[in-house]
Amino acid sequence: MSVFALALDIGGTKVAAGLIAPDGTVADRRVRPTAVSPDPETVWRPVAELVSELRAAAGPARVIGVGVGSAGPIHLPDGSISPVNIPAWRRFPLLERLAELVPGVPVRLAGDGSCAAAGEHWRGAGQGADDLLTIVVSTGVGGGLIQGGRLVAGPTGNAGHIGHVVVDLDGVPCPCGGRGCVEAMSSGPSMVEWALKEGWRAPVPAPTGVELAAAAREGDPCASEAFRRAGHALAAGIVSTAAIADLSRVVIGGGVAAAHDLLFPPLRAAITEHARLGFLQGLTVTTAALGGAAGLVGAAALVLVPQAYVGRGVASLA
Amino acid sequence: MSVFALALDIGGTKVAAGLIAPDGTVADRRVRPTAVSPDPETVWRPVAELVSELRAAAGPARVIGVGVGSAGPIHLPDGSISPVNIPAWRRFPLLERLAELVPGVPVRLAGDGSCAAAGEHWRGAGQGADDLLTIVVSTGVGGGLIQGGRLVAGPTGNAGHIGHVVVDLDGVPCPCGGRGCVEAMSSGPSMVEWALKEGWRAPVPAPTGVELAAAAREGDPCASEAFRRAGHALAAGIVSTAAIADLSRVVIGGGVAAAHDLLFPPLRAAITEHARLGFLQGLTVTTAALGGAAGLVGAAALVLVPQAYVGRGVASLA
Repeated sequence: MSVFALALDIGGTKVAAGLIAPDGTVADRRVRPTAVSPDPETVWRPVAELVSELRAAAGPARVIGVGVGSAGPIHLPDGSISPVNIPAWRRFPLLERLAELVPGVPVRLAGDGSCAAAGEHWRGAGQGADDLLTIVVSTGVGGGLIQGGRLVAGPTGNAGHIGHVVVDLDGVPCPCGGRGCVEAMSSGPSMVEWALKEGWRAPVPAPTGVELAAAAREGDPCASEAFRRAGHALAAGIVSTAAIADLSRVVIGGGVAAAHDLLFPPLRAAITEHARLGFLQGLTVTTAALGGAAGLVGAAALVLVPQAYVGRGVASLA
Repeated sequence: MSVFALALDIGGTKVAAGLIAPDGTVADRRVRPTAVSPDPETVWRPVAELVSELRAAAGPARVIGVGVGSAGPIHLPDGSISPVNIPAWRRFPLLERLAELVPGVPVRLAGDGSCAAAGEHWRGAGQGADDLLTIVVSTGVGGGLIQGGRLVAGPTGNAGHIGHVVVDLDGVPCPCGGRGCVEAMSSGPSMVEWALKEGWRAPVPAPTGVELAAAAREGDPCASEAFRRAGHALAAGIVSTAAIADLSRVVIGGGVAAAHDLLFPPLRAAITEHARLGFLQGLTVTTAALGGAAGLVGAAALVLVPQAYVGRGVASLA
């Protein structure tokens, strides 16, 4: 009889859920918008519905555990979450609620950056890399770390936070409250904001990275420069992370990285410029392979491959 | 009968050697200038003499192993070294030569930054910290990492290289060939160079950090600003490392850090400015406790406390 892990990926704009087979195949995947409400139970309801739907869809197949990746901060060891972009959930007891819903199996939680890293390492572009940084460049810039072939989430579950590596010590303000962080230069919104300030005339009232990429491909100098700056900042963050963690592979996904024709050339040039020490020179950077499913596959890996992906920084209820 | 580890700390200007008791006490410590010669054997001779002297000094006490920390790069897994500042030694087979000299006991080698981290964690200012960065600010800026209570040296033995974390992506050239690295702003020579360029009138022809610190204490604005810049760059590197490795403690030693009255106030202010995310706010930074002996004590720890300090990135001959 077949078995599945039930995986969840909780974000500020959408919640994804899936049934993942032991070989990493996504057998079923469903996405809902994150409910917008001040009431924690209203936000919880569609999540619980997704779980029920998937258990029904599994039919006679057994669900052997629940793995969740969530936008941060997450709280260890109680498995509650307070995602910045889900204001109704402050120390929402996600692990406990899921354990009530799916009793008798392990329920595990890690940060979304860590889950993306586990997913790309297990079944994506990071396969076979013992020391890997995975980056998701989108509304924010997140990341996760594999060291020695294992997920390293750190004592608070926050390791791999490349978005808040400081690459310009006198740089622009960052949404985190600091300044000069990678996220302040390389996230989609920060790139758009910078280009608008420099005089980019956007074709729509509230442009995103999609319009910015189109403008850059048409030769708009502000839009092109926004991608160059973003690539340079990401490169500096990558080289710094490699110097600290002694990495050899980096995988980049997320909406902004989808414009790899614009992002990767300046990024690779800046890595060559900054990564001069011998042990940094073999660093390879590639695009992610799993797209939006990386977090879901990595959440399932918490259940299906615990020897590699469960350790400090992952919350667990047996 | 008492036992000792024989420890060595190989640097570009001096070689230190010692007998370290199982509780970390330094029972005997000797320092020689590093021999300057194009001949590898001429550089080896005083090292071999130090080892022989210490074995004689140990008397009836047994030497149960040899631990070495060396300036990098070091090469794994053969245990050879090619220190940048010892040009005669390129892939010099240090571990093999030591094993011939002291047969029948384990001989272990790690980078000097890793050994300083092991030393401060085992017996110094980092005791009890499960997740610790140790920094040595001197002619260069080196570092080492403890994660989960264990030394993490990385696949090539180079983890913890905070000196080459990029904190100013358009910054000044660094001795590594890159630019904007912590070392390019915070090492003693880079601070002196910057102050001289800005108009500092040094009291001696080839000033060092000692003269620069004296000038800053007398109110020289260029000298003071050199310390402020150095503190800011170090702080940005520390915050970046903490964001990647989810750290809570940092210990800083080395010649420049001896001027902590000048370095620490701007460093602490800049950490407060940059470290805004919740998990970064508990970060504490203190001065090292072991002074110049940290590397020696850490090298001994490779022999005396292998369960904590020997793993990937440490070369070993049984």
